[in-house]
Amino acid sequence: MNALEKLSTGNSQGKFICVGLDTDREKIPLHIKSALDFNKAIIDYTCDTAAAYKINFAFYEREGYEGLKILNETVKYIPSDILIIADAKRGDIGNTSEMYAKSIFEHYCCDAVTLNPLMGRDSLEPFLKYKDKLNYILALTSNKSADDFEKLELKNGRYLFQHIIEKVKEWNQWENCGVVFGATKIDELKENIKSFGSLPILLPGVGAQAGSLADVVHTFNSVNKRNFLVNVSRGIIYRSNGKDFAVKAKEELLRLNNEIRVILK
Amino acid sequence: MNALEKLSTGNSQGKFICVGLDTDREKIPLHIKSALDFNKAIIDYTCDTAAAYKINFAFYEREGYEGLKILNETVKYIPSDILIIADAKRGDIGNTSEMYAKSIFEHYCCDAVTLNPLMGRDSLEPFLKYKDKLNYILALTSNKSADDFEKLELKNGRYLFQHIIEKVKEWNQWENCGVVFGATKIDELKENIKSFGSLPILLPGVGAQAGSLADVVHTFNSVNKRNFLVNVSRGIIYRSNGKDFAVKAKEELLRLNNEIRVILK
Repeated sequence: MNALEKLSTGNSQGKFICVGLDTDREKIPLHIKSALDFNKAIIDYTCDTAAAYKINFAFYEREGYEGLKILNETVKYIPSDILIIADAKRGDIGNTSEMYAKSIFEHYCCDAVTLNPLMGRDSLEPFLKYKDKLNYILALTSNKSADDFEKLELKNGRYLFQHIIEKVKEWNQWENCGVVFGATKIDELKENIKSFGSLPILLPGVGAQAGSLADVVHTFNSVNKRNFLVNVSRGIIYRSNGKDFAVKAKEELLRLNNEIRVILK
Repeated sequence: MNALEKLSTGNSQGKFICVGLDTDREKIPLHIKSALDFNKAIIDYTCDTAAAYKINFAFYEREGYEGLKILNETVKYIPSDILIIADAKRGDIGNTSEMYAKSIFEHYCCDAVTLNPLMGRDSLEPFLKYKDKLNYILALTSNKSADDFEKLELKNGRYLFQHIIEKVKEWNQWENCGVVFGATKIDELKENIKSFGSLPILLPGVGAQAGSLADVVHTFNSVNKRNFLVNVSRGIIYRSNGKDFAVKAKEELLRLNNEIRVILK
């Protein structure tokens, strides 16, 4: 299955939550020896219900190459029919982006990636050449300072993030592009929900960042759009600091998924 | 010495070329066994003259954790008085950027980093907290598609990259910010040279990307600005594919440095 098929299959089964593996050795329960053991337990308990896993590269890079080994083993452990998103926010000049794309898609074998479009089309082209992968491109992010540049008003009266969404639609000739849109930006989401067209949307910001899951899902439901993923990281994986951490993660994922189903039914 | 002192010392000694270690196993001479051996030879022959080394993380990440080991060993091999720039173009929400900053500044012990400002101030704040480091923030990049967003005209009549430069000056309270500006964008460099103020400037794009070194240096000289670095990667490290690759790299670096000295004297 290619990336889009994995996404579609999950969505059609009522799975819309992406579990973010922002695994921080300082936050995992004391009885767990390594981040890899932690990830494996989380995956064991959530893989029936998770629509996708998002691996936040920063948390693994922090540990140097030892962390990258854990990242690699984590990717291998995830069942092959579940979408794996490399949350790496890469973007660079052509020959450099080519190396990043090889790293993420060929070396680590992830299905999807998050990309930063600031440098323009040719900086993302090496990723877009992988037709079977999925490229989630930053439009409006969940953080407060998204206002600094992403919400700048352009000469034509539109915001920069709106211009990015238009460009991503142009770049989507292989149907392998999507957009990152912060779940914390609910007003902007409502105002721009029709502008996404067929693009898959990845929404971080529910949980620790306080975005409202119900508001997000109602907004997508209002236009009958189903190819979206709501990412929750800390809000799922750190529900408990005890031996029941994986059970609690599963319970929270089921609760969130149920909240979505009730709205979409 | 902190990062700014390393930069100033190099500049005051007439060193303005940053050697880019974009080491690609497919491009290094056949008789060289590993990228690490290649880097060590390049460093041995260029460290007297290089103002800095820029390590392009993508080329190491491509090889997974084995590549990161080489990156780590390369950083350790560079003499401690020479500025080491992690060309990683990171930028993410706060808790994630904190992990990237720890990776680059604490784990790999680089002196400086390149950052992507699209997500705004809070996305770079974890890097800016390291007062002894140097943060080169993307303004106008050397690639063609820089026009897509960086050169968008804002409602106030300025370009996005000009707005970024203004913001970077605001963020520079610890005097640890700089700007990345493409050497290929000479007209824009001339028009904006006075806007940089005291910010250090990193200019990629000379060599394989065909920016003119003389044009760049004349522009800085016209305003008596000295805290700049011109990065050359492929144009130095791949001068020869034979056993003399390091000698040829040194010759090219000396030639470029001499070209600069003649203009600045």
